Amino acid sequence: MSKVDPLPPGSTIGILGGGQLARMLALAAASLGLKCQIFTPEQDSPAAEVSSAATVGAFDDEAALARFAESVDAVTYEFENVPSRTAAFLAGRRPLHPSAEALAITQDRLSEKRFVNGLAIETAPFAPVDDEASLADALAAIGLPAILKTRRLGYDGKGQVMLRSREEAAAAWAGVRGAPSVLEGLVPFAAELSVVAVRGKDGPVSTYDITENEHRHHILHVSRVPARFSEDIAGQARDIAERIAAGLDYVGVLAVEMFLVEEDEGSRLVVNEIAPRVHNSGHWTIEACRVSQFENHIRAVAGWPLGSTRRHADAEMTNLLGDDIDQWLHILADETASLHLYGKREARPGRKMGHVTRWR
Amino acid sequence: MSKVDPLPPGSTIGILGGGQLARMLALAAASLGLKCQIFTPEQDSPAAEVSSAATVGAFDDEAALARFAESVDAVTYEFENVPSRTAAFLAGRRPLHPSAEALAITQDRLSEKRFVNGLAIETAPFAPVDDEASLADALAAIGLPAILKTRRLGYDGKGQVMLRSREEAAAAWAGVRGAPSVLEGLVPFAAELSVVAVRGKDGPVSTYDITENEHRHHILHVSRVPARFSEDIAGQARDIAERIAAGLDYVGVLAVEMFLVEEDEGSRLVVNEIAPRVHNSGHWTIEACRVSQFENHIRAVAGWPLGSTRRHADAEMTNLLGDDIDQWLHILADETASLHLYGKREARPGRKMGHVTRWR
Repeated sequence: MSKVDPLPPGSTIGILGGGQLARMLALAAASLGLKCQIFTPEQDSPAAEVSSAATVGAFDDEAALARFAESVDAVTYEFENVPSRTAAFLAGRRPLHPSAEALAITQDRLSEKRFVNGLAIETAPFAPVDDEASLADALAAIGLPAILKTRRLGYDGKGQVMLRSREEAAAAWAGVRGAPSVLEGLVPFAAELSVVAVRGKDGPVSTYDITENEHRHHILHVSRVPARFSEDIAGQARDIAERIAAGLDYVGVLAVEMFLVEEDEGSRLVVNEIAPRVHNSGHWTIEACRVSQFENHIRAVAGWPLGSTRRHADAEMTNLLGDDIDQWLHILADETASLHLYGKREARPGRKMGHVTRWR
Repeated sequence: MSKVDPLPPGSTIGILGGGQLARMLALAAASLGLKCQIFTPEQDSPAAEVSSAATVGAFDDEAALARFAESVDAVTYEFENVPSRTAAFLAGRRPLHPSAEALAITQDRLSEKRFVNGLAIETAPFAPVDDEASLADALAAIGLPAILKTRRLGYDGKGQVMLRSREEAAAAWAGVRGAPSVLEGLVPFAAELSVVAVRGKDGPVSTYDITENEHRHHILHVSRVPARFSEDIAGQARDIAERIAAGLDYVGVLAVEMFLVEEDEGSRLVVNEIAPRVHNSGHWTIEACRVSQFENHIRAVAGWPLGSTRRHADAEMTNLLGDDIDQWLHILADETASLHLYGKREARPGRKMGHVTRWR
């Protein structure tokens, strides 16, 4: 089932994962008169708190998955690390968007990069690494410095080891615990940007305005719109996101993270990563667009017409990590700030506790 | 307890009533990392669906109210017909905003009008009616046509009978079932408007832009901003709302409905009704303001700093009553429209099923 007819109001969207992205999806769904049911291994998840129901279970618990499928009308997910068997199991029972195929391609760095290159879009140079011998070959091909990244289950810099010399190879291989990986060349980027795109069942891809991103310790720190790039670069970035979404026969919101590389012969874009889901760098759309990435994802999953991605304000989104959340009262007193807190109890270092969008 | 210190994130706001206003309050609270617990006699209420918990009970069930109070950090309400004993019971256990005093004044048309007149603000001419004899006196004082309205429990035109002749007096008295009432003179208004105001624990009153309203069959049909009134009228309207909020020592959002009367000697405003709560004529603030009436009410109840009431767009809100909801797919296809559905199952005639805000 790759396409859906519009679900009637009152239908239930099943969401795999119970974190802040699912929470914001559930809030958007509620405004539209849709219910959400969360599937998560976590008790008291941020998303379950604002959803009409939750199934607490492991992603390989087929009895729980079957119960979940029975009680929802369509299924989506907030993170790309949904096991492929889980996705296949659910896709056999209910419409799953984005599709299991899109998920399979984008949850594996190697298949993702090959897919992107197959569209004649540039990525960082890369080579597969399955053992120490192939790591040595990869280092010879890619050069140094380079980053060894696990093919699966990486996010926010997890599962990544930087290599600056060949002598670090064994330690790096131990660092990824021998998991199937890719070695990536370092891209000497001038800036980081992302494009959040959405595609509905009827095919055309819409993109939100290009976002300029700044990471700290591999975690998104700030996103800004408008980005300070040329019209030409913005157009190229949109085009890349549109071709990727179309190439994946995608339904829902997707984000493409890119590097801007500036060289004597001109600027160009290099795709870093595809996220088959709503994305941290699109949180500003809640305030600055008529229809947020969350609402548009829900609309796409429900088979509803998409809303406008037009931006009506300038904005800057800053993540609140760990005890950044202690600033909440200060942020509230700032009339240019919209505070979002995710209802997480424990403010562990680096944990995404909320974000603030400032109107500029 | 009339004032509150700021509640920490993760606190729980108790809301009396489980309809669409409570639902939109709960959604606003969730974005801020606050939980809501709904108290309502209704199973499967629109608000409970998006809240972390609900207590289902009657408003005079003190055991249920005590349990509810135990599990929340502050209490508010979505409608003015909370019995005064319920309000007093809860106010003795948890901070209640708006206060039981503000509720007592505004849930009774007679005390409300006396309070408004006491601030030297005009209302329709009125007289109390407690029996057929006082109805005859009131008719003599007020003249015809006039409207007999129950002092309590009226909304959307319920509990109202129009009188065009003295002969209709007995039937009108039967029409309100002998409930304590007021007789109001008809105000020959040129337009209807409302002001949504918010006041936090620190005192200053902020107002949203004046809204121009159009009713059909006594139910709000359309609200428009900007309203087409002079600066002078807009200033007077804000001033009236501010004096009322200050006079009630109010904490939270309140709406004041007014009539614009145009006469040869100039225009003036007549207060029709105070709603001690978020209001249907303020729904446009979700799209057109940085901080909606719902978020600002939650902030006030939580003792948090208030957000800006500034409007950044022109908007028109239309209620979706009964089977108006059948237009949902058509509305979604309109890029200027933001659809809000309340998750109600049964589309009874005249029932508020949702609303649509159009960007103009």
